[in-house]
Amino acid sequence: MDKTSSVSIHEGKPIRCKAALCRKAGEALVIEEIQVDPPQAYEVRIKILCTSLCHTDVAFWKLEWGPLARFPRILGHEAVGVVESIGELVDGFKQGDVVLPVFHPHCEECRDCKSPKSNWCSRFCDDFVSNTRRYGMASRFKDFSGEDIYHFFFVSSFSEYTVVDIAHLVNISPEIPVDKAALLSCCVSTGVGAAWKVANVEEGSTVAIFGLGAVGLAVAEGARLRGAAKIIGVDLNPDKFEIGKRFGITDFVNPALSGEKKISQVIKEMTEGGVDYSFECIGLTSSMEEAFNSTRTGSGKTVILGKEKQMLPISLGSHDLLRGRTICGTLFGGLKPKLDIPILVDSYLKKELNLNGFITHELSFEEINKAFDLLVKGETIRCVLWMDK
Amino acid sequence: MDKTSSVSIHEGKPIRCKAALCRKAGEALVIEEIQVDPPQAYEVRIKILCTSLCHTDVAFWKLEWGPLARFPRILGHEAVGVVESIGELVDGFKQGDVVLPVFHPHCEECRDCKSPKSNWCSRFCDDFVSNTRRYGMASRFKDFSGEDIYHFFFVSSFSEYTVVDIAHLVNISPEIPVDKAALLSCCVSTGVGAAWKVANVEEGSTVAIFGLGAVGLAVAEGARLRGAAKIIGVDLNPDKFEIGKRFGITDFVNPALSGEKKISQVIKEMTEGGVDYSFECIGLTSSMEEAFNSTRTGSGKTVILGKEKQMLPISLGSHDLLRGRTICGTLFGGLKPKLDIPILVDSYLKKELNLNGFITHELSFEEINKAFDLLVKGETIRCVLWMDK
Repeated sequence: MDKTSSVSIHEGKPIRCKAALCRKAGEALVIEEIQVDPPQAYEVRIKILCTSLCHTDVAFWKLEWGPLARFPRILGHEAVGVVESIGELVDGFKQGDVVLPVFHPHCEECRDCKSPKSNWCSRFCDDFVSNTRRYGMASRFKDFSGEDIYHFFFVSSFSEYTVVDIAHLVNISPEIPVDKAALLSCCVSTGVGAAWKVANVEEGSTVAIFGLGAVGLAVAEGARLRGAAKIIGVDLNPDKFEIGKRFGITDFVNPALSGEKKISQVIKEMTEGGVDYSFECIGLTSSMEEAFNSTRTGSGKTVILGKEKQMLPISLGSHDLLRGRTICGTLFGGLKPKLDIPILVDSYLKKELNLNGFITHELSFEEINKAFDLLVKGETIRCVLWMDK
Repeated sequence: MDKTSSVSIHEGKPIRCKAALCRKAGEALVIEEIQVDPPQAYEVRIKILCTSLCHTDVAFWKLEWGPLARFPRILGHEAVGVVESIGELVDGFKQGDVVLPVFHPHCEECRDCKSPKSNWCSRFCDDFVSNTRRYGMASRFKDFSGEDIYHFFFVSSFSEYTVVDIAHLVNISPEIPVDKAALLSCCVSTGVGAAWKVANVEEGSTVAIFGLGAVGLAVAEGARLRGAAKIIGVDLNPDKFEIGKRFGITDFVNPALSGEKKISQVIKEMTEGGVDYSFECIGLTSSMEEAFNSTRTGSGKTVILGKEKQMLPISLGSHDLLRGRTICGTLFGGLKPKLDIPILVDSYLKKELNLNGFITHELSFEEINKAFDLLVKGETIRCVLWMDK
């Protein structure tokens, strides 16, 4: 495929193309023709090459009420595209560049972006309800009737074209297959980043991962590459042990089969006192607490990756903390997208990072509702949707 | 004073000497003549030169019930002594050595003592109820009637002589004045260690310290030496601001004067979004939670040093964690006594670490009940008791 074909003839003008619209919570997406406006200052319009589905897409697809339930909307945030045209004041991107849109911003200018300790872009991170990063609720999408369509997480990749702020865009090497690269938009970066950058898992250490979805498996992959000696997966789905082995899972605990014994107790017995690192990739307070209790006194570290849907607090024994445990949380695996995603791309190109194993299904964009079905039923890790197939 | 005088003539035999006995919870200590047995294998008998008082001594002095309420007992765990005689299999200590007894063990042989990530000696740390480290409830102290006297935290420094396991003993340079060195047995090491080793406070950072007792002030001192730009003290006692300035406190918040506003809100406003590091040195779940909420999103780190007396859990917002905050706890400031105390001694001898400021009172050992009064009333930071005055 010639990635630069058909770029630039629409420069400065709206593009008409197909997108999968979510018109009502939980209802099948509808492929419609929409209009995508040209990019404004600091924005880039990209042609999506492929996109994949994440549970966060499903969560917002199902969301029926509250300020975040907005329709019609274009979901999707794991993708790879090619730059079609750029707005004013855009540095670092040009037509034809292969780019990764990322929901997590990286303005490169705020105090936190400049700090090596944080990936929480304080200029942009607190706002995740706007359509466009610097223009608030201004949408770049319109439907056939001229009505605005809501963006999603500043990406909206379930569309042939989308407009993305440069704070959400990363240039990547054209050498990496685009379907593999798309995984770095969200799930794999979150999991591998948590293992490498947040926990800093080291050779010979022990690890427990609560929840073996794509993020949990990516944590395992990160721990495997660091040489962890024991990587324990915890999941209610027994099939996840076999799947997990591809990513370094060495041991498996099924909470449904552990009887009255707490998972933390089972893990402590498996590791002579607790794991060095535990990761929660589900979003349940009970498993966050069990993850915390599974770690070794004096040095254990727990990393929370799962988003608790009801915003419930977690309860930790103050004495358990006092005796040398650590717990922290992370979004996007503590990674700074523009700095760290190229490192992951490089690791894949060196045949270290296993990305292939995450892709269990490939469908055409037209089959997007089938992809939702597969994810909802837990039958896929990642399903890649090809825009041109 | 000739520190080696009177050593060795009692070698292998009991010593009769004076000790301050706690015979009943909350009652004045009684100075009595006791018998101190010779040290067994891995033990050293030391002549205490001076000792100081810590709130933990007061807590155990007041403790009326439960398995930890034991009488008669010799309290005291901040002290400096000189080696009188050594038991079998003792390496690294000889008669006349100036030594610091430390409640926190460091066996140097277990997996955790050998790990650079932990100071939780897993061989010994879980047992803090025995009298002697390797002999369980065997006491080295007897009263006039021949009854065993309970040890305290493997130190029992409110006695002219005591017997200490080598896992609890650190050789120190004889150049440091012994009253200053005694502070490194507990409070100063805990606070400075938390700032240096656990939080790793860096130049230009912002710090909030909840509770300005000796430990909180030592955290400030550690942060000051690291070049923190703003060190906010939080205490109900307004006098603590002036006292705190000696140790680098730059700003002060009195919770009694902050009205309906939460302390975390006040601190966020003072620091454009939250401090880089917060430390809880009180032991209240409410202030642990406020300390956590006072830190900066994306990178804030909270260190718990206070022991919650009722073992209550703390409640943390899972979303606040997820957005890049860290909370951890530490005993003895994350320090490995035998490795790290000599570093603090060295820092004092280089005129960096301010130890002098902690000593607000000096009394003779005979006046020990006055020292308890001063500490209970909050009128002293540290009161040093001299054994020979």
